[in-house]
Amino acid sequence: MPDMPITGRSLRSTITSDGALELRMVEEEIADPTGSQVLVSVEASPINPSDLGVLLGPADPATLAPVEGGGLDGQVPERAVPIMRDRLDKALPVGNEGAGTVVAAGPDAEHLVGRAVTLIGGAMWSDYRLVDAAAVIPLPDDASPADGAALFINPMTALSMVETMRAEGHTALVHTAAASNLGQMLVKICKADGVGLVNIVRSAEQSATLTELGAEHVVDSSQPDFNDRLAEAVAATGATLAFDAVGGGTLASDILAAMERSTDPQEHWTPYGSPTHKQVYVYGSLDMGPTSIQRTFGMRWSVGGYLLTDAIGRLGGETIGRMRERVVAELKTTFASSYARTIGLGDALDPANLAEFSKRSTGTKYLIDPSLDRA
Amino acid sequence: MPDMPITGRSLRSTITSDGALELRMVEEEIADPTGSQVLVSVEASPINPSDLGVLLGPADPATLAPVEGGGLDGQVPERAVPIMRDRLDKALPVGNEGAGTVVAAGPDAEHLVGRAVTLIGGAMWSDYRLVDAAAVIPLPDDASPADGAALFINPMTALSMVETMRAEGHTALVHTAAASNLGQMLVKICKADGVGLVNIVRSAEQSATLTELGAEHVVDSSQPDFNDRLAEAVAATGATLAFDAVGGGTLASDILAAMERSTDPQEHWTPYGSPTHKQVYVYGSLDMGPTSIQRTFGMRWSVGGYLLTDAIGRLGGETIGRMRERVVAELKTTFASSYARTIGLGDALDPANLAEFSKRSTGTKYLIDPSLDRA
Repeated sequence: MPDMPITGRSLRSTITSDGALELRMVEEEIADPTGSQVLVSVEASPINPSDLGVLLGPADPATLAPVEGGGLDGQVPERAVPIMRDRLDKALPVGNEGAGTVVAAGPDAEHLVGRAVTLIGGAMWSDYRLVDAAAVIPLPDDASPADGAALFINPMTALSMVETMRAEGHTALVHTAAASNLGQMLVKICKADGVGLVNIVRSAEQSATLTELGAEHVVDSSQPDFNDRLAEAVAATGATLAFDAVGGGTLASDILAAMERSTDPQEHWTPYGSPTHKQVYVYGSLDMGPTSIQRTFGMRWSVGGYLLTDAIGRLGGETIGRMRERVVAELKTTFASSYARTIGLGDALDPANLAEFSKRSTGTKYLIDPSLDRA
Repeated sequence: MPDMPITGRSLRSTITSDGALELRMVEEEIADPTGSQVLVSVEASPINPSDLGVLLGPADPATLAPVEGGGLDGQVPERAVPIMRDRLDKALPVGNEGAGTVVAAGPDAEHLVGRAVTLIGGAMWSDYRLVDAAAVIPLPDDASPADGAALFINPMTALSMVETMRAEGHTALVHTAAASNLGQMLVKICKADGVGLVNIVRSAEQSATLTELGAEHVVDSSQPDFNDRLAEAVAATGATLAFDAVGGGTLASDILAAMERSTDPQEHWTPYGSPTHKQVYVYGSLDMGPTSIQRTFGMRWSVGGYLLTDAIGRLGGETIGRMRERVVAELKTTFASSYARTIGLGDALDPANLAEFSKRSTGTKYLIDPSLDRA
């Protein structure tokens, strides 16, 4: 067994009952692994939107300022404090998923020492994570921790969208914020599986990125003819299901209206619209404003939250097993992530970095590598 | 067989490709009933919101003006014309449900002549309706056509809400515009069945009406403490399902937020909110503006359209049969409707009446009795 580290850093986020947001780096003692435990030196953890939800809550990152002794303090809007009820005054660890190297192990897991592994362990924005060997997946020999840092949330979410489409009787998909890492995975999955996909992006640059990847239907919401182009693409694919990462504004409503426009004319008109059920699942909040639903698309529609955890529960073990196998097999192709920057763990508390990676926009994805600035 | 009428009036609504709304009274020939057909003299047809959807479409009734030769012309907003695609230039009959007296019948239905019957026949805003005997339900001897005019849409919708609650695993309900005829039925159903019901009304007067009926939880959205009172009532009942007749504005969102507030505290906080799924079904559009969903209640939520026809399909024949029996048995109690005014068929094209009954508010419900002004 190599020399055991004595302590390691771990990032904590607390929202106080007074509405303060406190971000702190704490130093924790590292226990010896026992039994089948492994100690993972974290070397790559992506900054996902779900991590920002824990890190910042409803606080505006512009309110964050350094405090004496280290860390940052910010402010949560007063009206949002009650919504945070269940996390008030708790110092929460951050970082859902990541990868690293096993640096120590209990007697039943010694074969893993030295191996690069990936895990959805929580508290990944830490120098070290002590977990059971059953919780880690060894990476193939040619994969680095950075290659394997984001093998759970985005890949499984993207695959779950296609599986949900099948399970709920739809035949094609609409996806928003489609130039994201997740969106690019979805383009590759749908291309491989022959599933119709309408990609909604917000700039000509993002549109070009997806077209290069082989996306057939890319619609730019920044263009004045967006709604007409969207209706054409929806009609061409027959999509009646959408996954929306934006949340706020009229986008979900625009998609439902496009779906309704693309239905076949009804001989016997009713005030209830087409018989086609149209579904939008909101799985993100790049725009945290209200979802504005215009209801000009009849009565057969639904807009609701979408959570990977719940989708996994609905889809069942066999489907999930198939999804996991595919993720590992296509780790460097379909499910490759790209990052705008890699930073150290301490750098996550640099206000300039924080302002950048907390922008809820695609194309600024960061990777944290605690080994970069480890003592 | 009594003397057969030769012709009868029937109201028609047309939206033209140019965006004009044309309301006309046409005179139609009445065919002899054959086989098992019955000819019903319409004597009572309610003006339901769903009828206004056919009559006016998206037109503002204030644009309606009398035209030479009879009838009214109005204007549909230009942006709404494409949504009306499937009804353009069709002269649609109006009036979903109603009751009357059988005045003639084919040889296989002669036993019904003279009987008061109710039907969901469409085109009920007419002097006469020729339908198959299987489509009508004879009313009990002590029930007038007015008593039996509205035995389908409101009673079946109200019952379907409680059945949907059971089918989808909820245990209590929230209802908006709760002082409506439908809302009053729901109060009586829930009281009889021991189902928790939160009634949202928009005035102190409506609140008093429901309290008199025996409603336990009545919350007035015009009061400044509405959201706190709503959260209390939701917590007291455990409601996680709502039926919303209002549609526009923040009401659906307020209800979801109240449901989330009333969930038990979670020991392990996640950014996804409580594990409780919260559902709002929008079944009406008293406010035709956009539904504004603030998304401050985690990820387990859904807002969607609700249509009686589809609910009936989901609930299945046995449940529907039970619902129908109850409606007829409780016609004068649970399912009694009250009307602000009864008008003749021609009166429906009087601009002053139209302005009044097309107000999408509770308490101004009209009944049409074509026999009042029949030639």
